Parts: sequence; C-alpha cells; structure tokens
Amino acid sequence: MSPKYVKSMALFQRASAVIPGGIYGHAAPAATVAGAFPYFAERAEGSRYWDVDGNEYIDLMCGYGPILLGYNHPEINAVTAEVQAQGDCFNHPTEYTVQLAERLAQQIEGADWAVFGKNGTDMTSWSIRVAREFTGKKRIAKAKQAYHGVDPWCVPGYGGIIAEDRAQIDSFVWNSVESLHELVKREGENLAAIMITPFHHPNFADSQLPNPDFVTAMNELCEKHGILLILDDVRCGFRLHSNGSHCSFGFNPDLMCYSKALGNGYPISACAGKRALKVAASKCFLTGSFWNAAVPIAAALKTLEIAERENLPKQLKVNGEQLVSGMLALGESHGVPLQSSGPGAMPYVRVAEDTSFHKQQALCAAAVEQGLYLHPHHNWFLSAAHTTGIIEECLQRFEAALKNCKSTLNL
Amino acid sequence: MSPKYVKSMALFQRASAVIPGGIYGHAAPAATVAGAFPYFAERAEGSRYWDVDGNEYIDLMCGYGPILLGYNHPEINAVTAEVQAQGDCFNHPTEYTVQLAERLAQQIEGADWAVFGKNGTDMTSWSIRVAREFTGKKRIAKAKQAYHGVDPWCVPGYGGIIAEDRAQIDSFVWNSVESLHELVKREGENLAAIMITPFHHPNFADSQLPNPDFVTAMNELCEKHGILLILDDVRCGFRLHSNGSHCSFGFNPDLMCYSKALGNGYPISACAGKRALKVAASKCFLTGSFWNAAVPIAAALKTLEIAERENLPKQLKVNGEQLVSGMLALGESHGVPLQSSGPGAMPYVRVAEDTSFHKQQALCAAAVEQGLYLHPHHNWFLSAAHTTGIIEECLQRFEAALKNCKSTLNL
Repeated sequence: MSPKYVKSMALFQRASAVIPGGIYGHAAPAATVAGAFPYFAERAEGSRYWDVDGNEYIDLMCGYGPILLGYNHPEINAVTAEVQAQGDCFNHPTEYTVQLAERLAQQIEGADWAVFGKNGTDMTSWSIRVAREFTGKKRIAKAKQAYHGVDPWCVPGYGGIIAEDRAQIDSFVWNSVESLHELVKREGENLAAIMITPFHHPNFADSQLPNPDFVTAMNELCEKHGILLILDDVRCGFRLHSNGSHCSFGFNPDLMCYSKALGNGYPISACAGKRALKVAASKCFLTGSFWNAAVPIAAALKTLEIAERENLPKQLKVNGEQLVSGMLALGESHGVPLQSSGPGAMPYVRVAEDTSFHKQQALCAAAVEQGLYLHPHHNWFLSAAHTTGIIEECLQRFEAALKNCKSTLNL
Repeated sequence: MSPKYVKSMALFQRASAVIPGGIYGHAAPAATVAGAFPYFAERAEGSRYWDVDGNEYIDLMCGYGPILLGYNHPEINAVTAEVQAQGDCFNHPTEYTVQLAERLAQQIEGADWAVFGKNGTDMTSWSIRVAREFTGKKRIAKAKQAYHGVDPWCVPGYGGIIAEDRAQIDSFVWNSVESLHELVKREGENLAAIMITPFHHPNFADSQLPNPDFVTAMNELCEKHGILLILDDVRCGFRLHSNGSHCSFGFNPDLMCYSKALGNGYPISACAGKRALKVAASKCFLTGSFWNAAVPIAAALKTLEIAERENLPKQLKVNGEQLVSGMLALGESHGVPLQSSGPGAMPYVRVAEDTSFHKQQALCAAAVEQGLYLHPHHNWFLSAAHTTGIIEECLQRFEAALKNCKSTLNL
C-alpha cells in the first residue's frame, strides 16, 4: 500500500466490517489493482478532486459520467440552493417537472413525452415494460457485454439471479448485421424490443462505434418486424449530441433512457418516448418516493441550458480529441504503443496488444501516482471543465507517468 | 374545478401534453377525486406546504413519508449545504458512507452491515436476490395487497408485466396464521424468503397491526424451514422504533429495507442484514450512478442523530394519538361516525361503514378545503413538526371540515 493512501486504507478496513465487499458497484473495480488507486473521495472542484488523504487528481472519470459541466458548478449550485430553500420533496410534483418534460420533448429528436426516476436502471427496466405493453410481445434483445443496469434481467453476473429473470432475454453481437438477422429470423415475431447503447463500451475492451450498415439494419429490421428500438443513453446522453446520442449515428429509437449527466451529479433519470407509446406508457405504473423532488429536476433544467449555451458536445469532442492525440503521440515518442477508441467526449486509451490488461493497469496506476485519474478498464469521460489548458496539464502528467512506468511495462 | 386550483389545473394540462397520465405514481391518486385536491406544490416549511396557487395546508402526508423532522429542517439544511460545498457525487464513496453503515449496524436490531441505494425498490428487489443467493431457493412470498415497490415482481397492476416476472412469487393473507401454514406446507422447501411490512397498510382499506400469534408463527416457520424473513421497513422505518419497526412487534428479520424517512426527504435507501448473509450479499452486484453521493448520506446521518436526540418515535406516537382521538371525538360530537387504524405515528382515520369511500373522499376534500391535507385512501404520516399546537390546529380545521360536509355525507 502506497503511503499516499493511509486514510483510504483505514476507511476501507472500517468499511469492510460493515459493508459487504467494503466498496460495491462501479466504485469497486479501482480496487482490482490493489494499492494503486484511492478508495474514498473528500472534495471536488471543476476538473479536479481530492481523496481522503488530500491527494489531488485531474479526473477523467467525472464520477463515472454524471459530472458534465465540472464538479461543484457555481451556476448549478446557485439554482439548487434557491430551489432547496423552498423545499425539495413534496406530496406533488412541482412546475419544474413539467418544464423538464417539455424541454426533453422539444430537445430530444423523436421524443414527445418524458417521465423521471432516480437511477438509469429505473428507466431501462420500465422501458421494457412499456415495450411489452405496447407490442403484446415478451422478448427483449440486447448486445452481448452491454451494460443496461442492475435489475435481474440485465445485471452483470449471476448473484441471486434465477432462470426466469432472463428467460425472455436474447442477445446479439454488436456491429454484426449477420447476428442481427439471425436474431430476427429466430425471434422476430416474439421481440417486443431491442435495447442498444449508442456505441458499444464494454469493460475490459475497446469501445466500438456503430458501423453505418449496422445502424441501417437495426432501423430497418425494427421497423419491418414491429420491434421497438430502445436507446439506453444513460452513459452517453448529452455528451455526444444535444438532441440525443442517436443523432450522432442515425439510430431511430422509440424510447430513449437518460440519467448520469442530465443533472450534473444530482440524482435523476428520464425516459422519453414517441407519441405512439404514450398510452402504453401511462399503463405501466412507476413511482418512487423521491421522483418528484424539485432540486434534481431544477438542476437538470439548468444543466441542459448551460450545455446548449456552451455548445458542449462540440467542445467535449475537440478537447477529447486533443487529449487522445496527445496521449498517442506521447506513447509513440516514449516507445509505449497505445491505441484509442470511442468518441472524443468519452475516450478510452490503452496499451496496445495488452490482452491481460496488466500493462494498462500499470500505466493507469502510474498516471494516478502523477495526479491524473484514469480508469484502466472502463471508458473515460470529459466535462466542460476539461479546458484546453487542463488537457495540456493532463498530458504533462501522462508523460511523467509514461516515463516512470516504462520499466514496469517492459518496453 | 375549484377556483382555488387555477394554476394547478393549468399546469396539469401542460403536464398531460408531455407526461403520460400527466402525473404518475403515488402523486396521482389525489386526482381520483377530481378538482378537490391540488396537483402541484411550490414550497414547504415545518408541517406546512403551499401549492402553486398559494393555498396553504397543514400536511399529514409528509411527502408520502420522507419528511420525518419537518420540511426544510434548518439543521439538515445546514449539514447538506456544508457537504454540498465540498461536492456530492464522486468516483468513490466518502467517509459518510462508512459512518452511516456503522450507525445502522449499531442502531438496527439484528443488523451487522448495510448497503445504500436511492429507491426503496432498489433494496426490496436486491434483498430477494440476496435471499435467493444465500438459500439457493427461488420462491418469494408476500402478503396480499402489500406494496413493496415498482419492480415487475411486485408492482401493483399488470401494465407491461409478463408471467415470468411473478412465476416464483407466492402470497399469503396478512395476520392469518392458517394462511401462513398453508403457504409453508405448499412451498416451504422452495421458499427463499417471506417479505413483510411491519404492519399491513393497503390502500383503500384500514391498516392492520400484526397479531402476536401471527408474529410468533412467522418467526417460527421461517426459522424451522430455513426461510429468510425480509422486513420492508421502507414506509414505516424510523417512525415506529429507532431500532427498526420489527422491534415494535417482535419480528425477527434477516434483512431490513429502509428509505423514505431515512434522509428527511433526501434520496436514499438502505438494506441492512445479519452477519450470516454478508458473503451472499457481496455476490449480488448492485450499483447506481448516484449511490455513493455524499449529501443524502450526510443528511441521513443527521436525521438519525436528531431523531434519537428528540426521542422521536415516542413523540410521533403521543401526538398522533392526540390527533386520532381528537378526530374521533369530533366525529362523534358532530354525528359523523369515524374509525381509526394503524399506529399513532402513521394513523388512518376514515368514515365508518363507507365501503365505496365516497363519504371519506368528501370528508378529506372538505378538510383540504380548510387547509388540512388528508389522503382519503392511504395511511397518513406525522413528523416532528406536528407539535401539540399543530395537532390542535389540525383538529380545528378538521372540525370546520366536518361541519361543512355534513350535508354531503348525508348524515
């Protein structure tokens, strides 16, 4: 254990006594490289955060996506403080709920209505109910290795899962038109919906943008066979395209699910859909104790306003591409072959031909040591706070990391 | 439509254009008595809230449970503002997560560990996975008419539900030892868990406390047949007993689920469990984008501290019983026969022998007209802000309502 992480480790030991696994979920994988990553955070500002030991990092994970404008954004803070002073969680919705539904119906390509929850999973799971209600069919297909949440029909792993949970779930291979055709040939008459992410971003693998022929086949097969197309835009939403990530690639979804970046860290999720599905949607009961709360919805309204004003998807693309090309150039000049994948706003760079990911883990550990927080096995995220100047600072820290770990990488 | 609700109605019409059903979930049923209840809220303070038309109410719903200490509580606000200034949603958990798990493990009778989510449903659904993982069995039983959330295995209604969702779900009749024995005789060897609420509080019905022989039979049958007992304490938690509502009645649960009141309106849920289940729990993947966020967890720590300091369950009981006995006495003196059910902290009073609930709806509508917000078909909730003085004010408004609706009630 690095002496940098004395408090992190002490807290992890306390956590292990009272929390199964100590740290669970998406925050846990950093622990797969024991001792190389901090375990607990303390504060954050803009593009940076500090762990409980006071170590500072430029963060390229953005809380695994939620932080779109930067941590602790002053305009968001001002709005939420003002709304919070009036109260947050009531017996009824507030006007903000209506305003946000109106905004999404106007902003998202193809959307005529919206509902709101707390988790991405709330919406991906509800959307398959809407698809089943609308079509009267049972089966749902998803891409192999795609992540759509933690409900039993889709959660990674098998802990506590029974056969019935996935009895009506099919899969296909991302970007394989042949696999799609096979799926539809086999189950087309029984498929209520196909759920996709805008691009494929499995863990421990490179990201894959959709090929144009895959997009065309997806749209045509769904149309032809009366299969609804559900876009799980939870991870990508509002980073790639302000009208929904499907607009970046040409997918024509019927239902679109959002969460993460929508409220710049405030807990909110949304499902937007086409007019034809509105009656079916109204028949699929959904609720949650905090779903009408005003503060996260007001945060989302402000987040969308700022993102539009700043033309954010373009900025994230440009600055992300600056980051990636800088990293690749540094790799080349230091003799460490790197490869990149995914869009600029959500890039992933890793050591080339490193099937075990051990070199990648060593490189990311060295970056973290230099104060650049990189995840070894998961796509990264840019925020508005990753300005050109911050990207330059990232590259300086990355170069120092490359120099330090060259011997570890055995190159 | 009452001229009191001009803005509520205008907003509802806007909402109906962009939200399926206009208002969904638990906030919608007030609309079952068209025109008699407000649809949208604007602000709240202590025991009161104001709708978008500026009408003021003493609130006996507490946001359907979350508001335990009163709306906009100054001590909670002070803590959350301080934590928010450091940041909320990070790549990692914060020390608050560990502190809250430690606190629940110490405070909740029988609990050795805890995990946190956002919705009550996150935890009720995860707890059945833990039970299946631990026991290797599939079936789950719940009481008829009991509400445990919106996931397909338990959501009220059938919209978008397929047979597989409930293929392994059994039911029994609350408070019927005979029904429990029949269940166990039929499925005892296949039951992973029985899920219960601490008392039975179905909509459109009186609440039922558990009979002692039912509690004994539940504990003994679960023990004897290796069935886990899961307490869904989402609605009742922290109002009836500070060590968990099972302590009020003698249930001996293995897993206990909380949400609603835990953070005084901030979005958080928790599942606490016995030591024997910790390894199984660690195998059931759970996560959410906002589940490590610091602010709601810090709000929960402060809420629990204040509730303990104020000996809150006792205060809620005393003041709730003052409310109920006052209402019953007023009903008698005005010739309107009323009946009460449920514990003082979560009472439910309704017009006696009113099987259609039409008289009850008229009475609650009249109370709302007088500025006393009562739900006609759902248990009510007290908070710490419902002091003796506020209860007296409730009774004054209730008496005015009784006088006004006597002719409507045809008594």
